[in-house]
Amino acid sequence: MNEAPVVILVRPQLGENIGAAARAMSNFGLGELRLVAPRDGWPNQRALEVASGGTQIIENARLFPDFASAMADIEQAFATTARPRDMRKRVLTPKEAMAGLTRKTAFVFGPERTGLENEEIVLCDTLITIPTAQNASLNLAQCVVVMAYEWFQTMQTTSPAAANEKADALASKTDWLGLFEQLESYLDQTNYYRVNHKKPIMWQNLQTMLMRGAWSEQEIRSFRGMLRAIWERRRRNSDPETYP
Amino acid sequence: MNEAPVVILVRPQLGENIGAAARAMSNFGLGELRLVAPRDGWPNQRALEVASGGTQIIENARLFPDFASAMADIEQAFATTARPRDMRKRVLTPKEAMAGLTRKTAFVFGPERTGLENEEIVLCDTLITIPTAQNASLNLAQCVVVMAYEWFQTMQTTSPAAANEKADALASKTDWLGLFEQLESYLDQTNYYRVNHKKPIMWQNLQTMLMRGAWSEQEIRSFRGMLRAIWERRRRNSDPETYP
Repeated sequence: MNEAPVVILVRPQLGENIGAAARAMSNFGLGELRLVAPRDGWPNQRALEVASGGTQIIENARLFPDFASAMADIEQAFATTARPRDMRKRVLTPKEAMAGLTRKTAFVFGPERTGLENEEIVLCDTLITIPTAQNASLNLAQCVVVMAYEWFQTMQTTSPAAANEKADALASKTDWLGLFEQLESYLDQTNYYRVNHKKPIMWQNLQTMLMRGAWSEQEIRSFRGMLRAIWERRRRNSDPETYP
Repeated sequence: MNEAPVVILVRPQLGENIGAAARAMSNFGLGELRLVAPRDGWPNQRALEVASGGTQIIENARLFPDFASAMADIEQAFATTARPRDMRKRVLTPKEAMAGLTRKTAFVFGPERTGLENEEIVLCDTLITIPTAQNASLNLAQCVVVMAYEWFQTMQTTSPAAANEKADALASKTDWLGLFEQLESYLDQTNYYRVNHKKPIMWQNLQTMLMRGAWSEQEIRSFRGMLRAIWERRRRNSDPETYP
């Protein structure tokens, strides 16, 4: 394990949940909190009141206007979701997830009422489902408790040597966003989607399947070069009669 | 495991914590809540508000004037304590504790500020210490979350991850070969490899990274359609639904 995962709360609604999340983070050795557009603004007095031993985490929390910017330097993101999503992404329990952490990692939590949007989930590598009884609706802060608790449990039992092996730098989300921007611009100029209303779902599926490969930065570069080559269709010997 | 453990909150101070504990109990399949002399009396409106899916647990909670009466029918009690007590009692982590539950069991939690009194701890068979980082002061409801979560984990026999994963048929190697043939033919007509002798290794890397995504047959089809669209670059100019 290199460093403790970052906790990203996306559009959290209640200050008390932010504070309770920070408190649990401090209980279980997590230090970095990022907030994407908290509903009631920031700073939030209620969050501070509830944070107890986690006040410093609240004071150092970083604020982001949107999810993409909060994710820019993250290499591996786990999104907690209660309801199943129609995406072919890996789904793990918290315990299963902790076994494989080696990179710059984020635990991502959506807003209390609605959870994460699909466009946000697309940017995450793995979905986490906390096994529950009939009532599957976990409180936001309590989700954070479970993830942080499991992380700390794993930390205590994993030898750092084992965790450190073979950590090929994974692409950051910035790398992925660059690739997606390029690909989207190409596709928008073709007839790939056939009809407009199909674009959102087709585009989401394409992003999801590409991300599943967990590419390195170098691999993203290769793929982008490949796309560009196919898009430009230029032959190497610049044969004048080849392509328009 | 005979029946779900009972949760006993001893002199809880905040209604919110009682409600949050009930919510977590309902998340993780615990049903019976006992309250020993809650500070603000009972019923407690705030507890109900916070309980969410656990309101029935709040409504059915049983009230006791003292700890001994709340424990009367309990055969095995686990007391959560943050600070070590000077008593020769077994101390376990939550996970260790769950392994041995067979009897009418209680999870016992003390008041927020002070924790359980020693006379109360004497009545408990085993102490539970939740492993924490520097800040060892866990919120009461979050203690309940951890205990209930671990109990439910132990109860679970099947991994929901396996059940949740969409069992989309993976692509056959024939599908992959079809994709590779198409892609290779495009790339051979471009300047992607720059120099000929780099082709074998670049091509191998590209195949490897694509295969890592473990795509389904449908996903291979989508990807091939995407490649074709970019290769052909045709806009549907005559079509009113075309992209700009």
